[in-house]
Amino acid sequence: MIYLDNAATTKPDEECLKKAEKYLYTDYYNPSAVYAGGYNLHKELASAKENIISTIADSENFGLIFTSCGTEADNQALFCGGKRGNVVTTLGEHSAIFAAANELKQRGLDVRFAPLNRDGSVNSDELVKLIDEKTSLVSVIHASNETGAINDINKIAAAVKAKNKYTLFHSDGVQAFGKFAFTLSRNIDLYSVSAHKIGGIKGCGALFKRKNLVLKPFIFGGGQESGLRSGTENVFAIKDFEFAALKRYAILDKAFAYVSELKKRLSDSLDKNVFRIISPANGSPYILTVSAVGLRGETLVHECDDKGLVIGNGAACSSNDKKRYSRVILACGQPESVADGVLRISFSPENSLEEVQKAAEILNFTAKNRKSIME
Amino acid sequence: MIYLDNAATTKPDEECLKKAEKYLYTDYYNPSAVYAGGYNLHKELASAKENIISTIADSENFGLIFTSCGTEADNQALFCGGKRGNVVTTLGEHSAIFAAANELKQRGLDVRFAPLNRDGSVNSDELVKLIDEKTSLVSVIHASNETGAINDINKIAAAVKAKNKYTLFHSDGVQAFGKFAFTLSRNIDLYSVSAHKIGGIKGCGALFKRKNLVLKPFIFGGGQESGLRSGTENVFAIKDFEFAALKRYAILDKAFAYVSELKKRLSDSLDKNVFRIISPANGSPYILTVSAVGLRGETLVHECDDKGLVIGNGAACSSNDKKRYSRVILACGQPESVADGVLRISFSPENSLEEVQKAAEILNFTAKNRKSIME
Repeated sequence: MIYLDNAATTKPDEECLKKAEKYLYTDYYNPSAVYAGGYNLHKELASAKENIISTIADSENFGLIFTSCGTEADNQALFCGGKRGNVVTTLGEHSAIFAAANELKQRGLDVRFAPLNRDGSVNSDELVKLIDEKTSLVSVIHASNETGAINDINKIAAAVKAKNKYTLFHSDGVQAFGKFAFTLSRNIDLYSVSAHKIGGIKGCGALFKRKNLVLKPFIFGGGQESGLRSGTENVFAIKDFEFAALKRYAILDKAFAYVSELKKRLSDSLDKNVFRIISPANGSPYILTVSAVGLRGETLVHECDDKGLVIGNGAACSSNDKKRYSRVILACGQPESVADGVLRISFSPENSLEEVQKAAEILNFTAKNRKSIME
Repeated sequence: MIYLDNAATTKPDEECLKKAEKYLYTDYYNPSAVYAGGYNLHKELASAKENIISTIADSENFGLIFTSCGTEADNQALFCGGKRGNVVTTLGEHSAIFAAANELKQRGLDVRFAPLNRDGSVNSDELVKLIDEKTSLVSVIHASNETGAINDINKIAAAVKAKNKYTLFHSDGVQAFGKFAFTLSRNIDLYSVSAHKIGGIKGCGALFKRKNLVLKPFIFGGGQESGLRSGTENVFAIKDFEFAALKRYAILDKAFAYVSELKKRLSDSLDKNVFRIISPANGSPYILTVSAVGLRGETLVHECDDKGLVIGNGAACSSNDKKRYSRVILACGQPESVADGVLRISFSPENSLEEVQKAAEILNFTAKNRKSIME
């Protein structure tokens, strides 16, 4: 089986799992307990935090709140950061921001959506125009989960602050963290990440927070995470996340070069009479989105699955809303015929060149076969 | 090491972990994905849901939302159920309800707290008096995490509905689920549980929901859990929770009788010149709360820890708020001298009679020693 749906979730790294296993089998205490077993875990969580922060930020200026997933981190940023006036975001956001923004709108807030460029990146000039003296929060996805387009968030955040220095800037970094090199500038107030997209496990995310930013909790209770996220800390998942993040960052540039080669090989090998490339050349090498124009992506996903190739048709979680076309692909200015044929092929450094070559063969064969049936 | 802080967290059941491990190592797909690997997990989550519901409710009338912890389940119940008019709860709630209720108050809602009886159960007559035609939600903890006192929630819910049939009734069942026999009556609208208190792992909880109740999501995004809880499902933790719950319920009555014997033995063996029993005789057998009046609980916890006995001083998570006295113990009408000496000893069916006997010796010796030093 060839697994090329790594943007939906990655196979948890076995080495990291083995290292973290002790937090299930022996060091299972409650980190809030005052006895040694609990307190030691409290310290282990603190070091996990420091280590994860250090991958993309300086811990002098940034703190971090562990959450149960990227979606929760996004929700905390939006609901706790965007409380008054208006909120500006983009038409290219993951549902964790998009649906939360629409909920804010339901609650009476003025929510403004900036348009996208053809490749799925935000039109930053238009975004900045939407900001005024009442804008409490701007949220811009770092790497699009649908096309892999990268928004230069440090540059956009600087433009946001130049327009209104009191506006908070948040970015959903779920498809960027552990994938390519960047550091958070001091114009970034909040930044969401997720463990299971980089070899960690499901059920763990984090929200980076500029240290002197006062943020309200989203989940209230026992006061864990300095009061910013209550609930017994998920020690196993957090430590596993730490190990996975450090492992990814230790090989970041090498993995980037390697995955870029995977993407190029696949892209080059696809039959251009059948597949149109949607992803930008300068986007994340971890995501290659194409469209088999005139065919249905979901059908191809099933047919490839039968042949041992696992790929996605757009964002995995969008299958829950039962909408046929991706709102993000449509917002890129693509017609429905293109949106209908979308396939998202997403890589991990664990994938081999042989897998990618075989994947291209399966994709070409399957799409041509389906096309001939339909003609 | 003798672990008697099972109300804070339990050692994850190894058999269940082994059974669930495949969701980390091989079946790691995103359950929202449309291909077979994803769809199969989607079905596995549905069967986990059915199995967990069946332990305490009928699945004709109840559904269930998987959450990241009991605290999140409590927050969803309170913030999504208690939206207008007033909310009635008790002075004996876990912080997950108590802090959330105070947040509702901050947001301008009228929040009313019913007083407690001496044993930590709610004074239900006083509770019912607080309900009026504007009460949107009542939340009453099922088994007190501080004293083990059990509230007869089906009876209280019936009284609540008799007073106002439109009022929603929620109960925090984190210390009740998997501990003693009960079934949810149709007067219960929402019920929170947690995996790691019954041999599951941290990072997983659930909110039981009466099926025809319309509830808003608390976390917005990809639309998982029928739109009621977005975020990639934590398959490993959920399946592990299912296994742990089924295992506990298979031996529920036997475990109850056994743990009752553990509690009785310890209670009988404690030196009554030093320890005052706080827990009611008819409370949960899983929790024995005592006070070493005149001594400081936290000091005794450390001294027992040094001797190989792990116990708690009140709710584990209350260590985060840095308050010296438990608000719940004070609300029971106990003076500060009693609250200061509180120790919570909490059992699991895995504990042995020998462990409990040894624990009593350590507790008696440690407290008497400390007392003699202080005199």
